Amino acid sequence: MRRTSFRDAECPIARGVDQVGDWWSLLILRDALGGLTRFDQFERSLGIAPAMLTKRLRALVESGLLERRPYAERPVRHEYVLTERGRDFRSVLLAFYAWQERQTPADDLVMRPVDRDGTPVDPVLVDRATGRPLAELGVRFAPGPAASPALHRRLTRRPVD
Amino acid sequence: MRRTSFRDAECPIARGVDQVGDWWSLLILRDALGGLTRFDQFERSLGIAPAMLTKRLRALVESGLLERRPYAERPVRHEYVLTERGRDFRSVLLAFYAWQERQTPADDLVMRPVDRDGTPVDPVLVDRATGRPLAELGVRFAPGPAASPALHRRLTRRPVD
Repeated sequence: MRRTSFRDAECPIARGVDQVGDWWSLLILRDALGGLTRFDQFERSLGIAPAMLTKRLRALVESGLLERRPYAERPVRHEYVLTERGRDFRSVLLAFYAWQERQTPADDLVMRPVDRDGTPVDPVLVDRATGRPLAELGVRFAPGPAASPALHRRLTRRPVD
Repeated sequence: MRRTSFRDAECPIARGVDQVGDWWSLLILRDALGGLTRFDQFERSLGIAPAMLTKRLRALVESGLLERRPYAERPVRHEYVLTERGRDFRSVLLAFYAWQERQTPADDLVMRPVDRDGTPVDPVLVDRATGRPLAELGVRFAPGPAASPALHRRLTRRPVD
């Protein structure tokens, strides 16, 4: 089944979707951020078919989220290391985690984000300049300087508060 | 092609993936947050096949992200309205947007998040208690109180900084 491509979409969310590729890719990135680098590690962690894993890893390299590099010479073996853009994807996973667990009591959490000293952190999206939580601001998307007339029309509809 | 289900996964990110379903669902949620409620509106906006749209809308209703309710009686017509959990998903889309556009110069932006007065906002994930940006804290996932031994082992591997 050929998936629709959003590569040329004007909406950056749709383009981002195209780069990450599918949900397997999201879980591969989760594991890469958790320290996995090798094909057999991803395969074991995800229970994914090897052909699918090969395909998803290749797509993530092509999208510039992972870098493929040799770690052994005889025989040649490659590992998959996050690029800067791949490491940045951590913020998306944290937002996803926070959404999923918003209603979960602390005692029922199976995992939680901590800083490098092991202190728990509670991720919240705020406006960088003012520190105000975005959830309180009724945030919506407005057309930017480079918006097409079609995107202008679409973004000036009544948003959900 | 039957997609693998992550419904019973221990990892909340994998469970969240299962609830949202696939990338079409993510773009449906994007459009719902932009104010769309009706089948034909989603169909036109996304260029999605009607059978696929029916399937994805039903899944989002079953996952509790959308609510299906009548808006006309003769003939009966239904619209799809975000639940509170669906509205909460905005934070995931904002994190996704911010990741995708991190390197884009301001003049090249096709859209940008604004508050309800139209003032641009710059989404950044911080720790709620301290306000520190998570990107600077080397955030990783640690086992929570309810972690299984297997998840414990997995989360105590060396993470990526």
